[in-house]
Amino acid sequence: MGATGAVGQQMKEQLEKRNFPIKDIMFLSSSRSAGKEIEFNGKTFIVQEAKPESFEGIDIALFSAGGSVSEKFAPEAVKRGAVVIDNTSAFRMDKDVPLVVPEVNKSDLGLQKGIVANPNCSTIQMVCALQPLKEQFGMTKVVVSTYQAVSGAGLDAINELKTQAADFDNAKDAEAKMLPVKSAEHHYPIAFNVIPQIDQFADNGYTFEEMKMINETKKIMHDDSLAVAATCVRLPVVTGHSESVYVELARAATVEQVKQAIKDAPGVELMDDPSNQVYPMPLMAAGLDEVFVGRIRQDLDNPNGFHLWVVADNLVKGAALNSVQIAEALIEEKII
Amino acid sequence: MGATGAVGQQMKEQLEKRNFPIKDIMFLSSSRSAGKEIEFNGKTFIVQEAKPESFEGIDIALFSAGGSVSEKFAPEAVKRGAVVIDNTSAFRMDKDVPLVVPEVNKSDLGLQKGIVANPNCSTIQMVCALQPLKEQFGMTKVVVSTYQAVSGAGLDAINELKTQAADFDNAKDAEAKMLPVKSAEHHYPIAFNVIPQIDQFADNGYTFEEMKMINETKKIMHDDSLAVAATCVRLPVVTGHSESVYVELARAATVEQVKQAIKDAPGVELMDDPSNQVYPMPLMAAGLDEVFVGRIRQDLDNPNGFHLWVVADNLVKGAALNSVQIAEALIEEKII
Repeated sequence: MGATGAVGQQMKEQLEKRNFPIKDIMFLSSSRSAGKEIEFNGKTFIVQEAKPESFEGIDIALFSAGGSVSEKFAPEAVKRGAVVIDNTSAFRMDKDVPLVVPEVNKSDLGLQKGIVANPNCSTIQMVCALQPLKEQFGMTKVVVSTYQAVSGAGLDAINELKTQAADFDNAKDAEAKMLPVKSAEHHYPIAFNVIPQIDQFADNGYTFEEMKMINETKKIMHDDSLAVAATCVRLPVVTGHSESVYVELARAATVEQVKQAIKDAPGVELMDDPSNQVYPMPLMAAGLDEVFVGRIRQDLDNPNGFHLWVVADNLVKGAALNSVQIAEALIEEKII
Repeated sequence: MGATGAVGQQMKEQLEKRNFPIKDIMFLSSSRSAGKEIEFNGKTFIVQEAKPESFEGIDIALFSAGGSVSEKFAPEAVKRGAVVIDNTSAFRMDKDVPLVVPEVNKSDLGLQKGIVANPNCSTIQMVCALQPLKEQFGMTKVVVSTYQAVSGAGLDAINELKTQAADFDNAKDAEAKMLPVKSAEHHYPIAFNVIPQIDQFADNGYTFEEMKMINETKKIMHDDSLAVAATCVRLPVVTGHSESVYVELARAATVEQVKQAIKDAPGVELMDDPSNQVYPMPLMAAGLDEVFVGRIRQDLDNPNGFHLWVVADNLVKGAALNSVQIAEALIEEKII
């Protein structure tokens, strides 16, 4: 569901690449995109307009078409026996909906009642990096500042960046219609700029994107007492979110221990050799599956404090790959 | 000294714009740029190659031509009676050299022995925002993640960004010669990318840029016990550094009190109205004198913790304007 969007296209590629066991597949969308053609495993499929009865006989429904679409169709799919893996924020904080990053909390899948939520992109990559540290050393506090790519706002946002970037000398006066939020009153150019707003503002002055990172991290890591603060920022990068993360551990650790924990963690790749200028960057992480972590260093004042630089493809591990991994885990755990 | 560089040009403009009291002026550079013409207050000047005797009869010498040039020529200028205002990092941490942001520690100018250092661009804007909070509420801890523009790396870095940005579809394979550090072994594209390295790496895993922010902040704010941590990151922005700052105050405060303190601070402008999407952005701050502060919010776990978003033109308040303000203060304080 949402097959023609930026994440939908990545989901299709992940299903092909990972050789997901598929007997039959259907590509759904709104009426606007219905009729388009999609190639999958060498065959051509016509995108169908989603209707409640589209979900008859479906085992797994991957949703990535916006919160209101999920709210409308996910219950219909569940009613017809499907397990919905929803990439929107519609159900993420529901008590009855597990919010899953398989490397971190796969066992929560056992609690599902028809819907499993895929976390926000910026949350997924952070918890992949934090979980091994929390397991080994405990964790009390996280302060994250993000450097987020425009692809998180969809294909139209990518095209807007491309158009704006082509006119270097008029960056300030570039036409802007998409960012920070398409439906918001004001739009600002993103080329050669930095916008400290992702999603709308909540009443407390935080954006919903920031509140997602805060609340989802606590839910996924099963720790309401973990202090999490986030500042979420959009940049002129096409794909690949970066995060500057400050973390305070419950117990003392050395840099070497932290690096080893990251190195041993599933789905995470240590990329940290400053003397050879080796550290993760979004342009190099785009298209790859891993969460890359580098620039690991101890705080100079707090021996339990560590700074990390975390980069991942927001459309891959941040969305499509994680959803497909959830689907794989559902099969592995014999839930489906 | 360094008249033809990115900061040198801004210094010239600030001297003109602020109507600085000048009897005579000379524009100096290396032999490479000598002979170029510079317009100043409607007259044409020829850039001269700097020699020790160039500084005979000079009252104030503004240096911005790299650390090695300052090390060579600043002592020659001082020997001949000039006060040197040095924009490089050569003397910043010298005990005998005051490191001055006039809004914060103008009184340190009385300690000068011929050289006054201008702090690093990313430090200047941060201390302007932090000083009013420290004065009113005390301060124990600062964690900053920066979003820095390429103009901090000079005119060639701006041109490289421009060239790379023109080829959107080949961003990953773009030719790179300038960033993160011209003299470093590896260079990475900056267009549509994020590079978590500014300046070379110190042995502790921090970059020199990060260590500058840490050490300079303590020196300017006269507080060695203030815990400061920095992660410095280069972005595809032409001019204007942004900073995500987390600060822990010594005493409790409300968001309203913090906003009021920022509003009342010299050189700082509160730009903080989330409901109308008002917050600082580099594209809008470029060319302006002020340090802009927005996105002010209380930490959700620590009532003494606050998050700020600080933006300023790194060539203006971050370099040229601050240097000229130091020169004005030297006159005002009757040091010259």
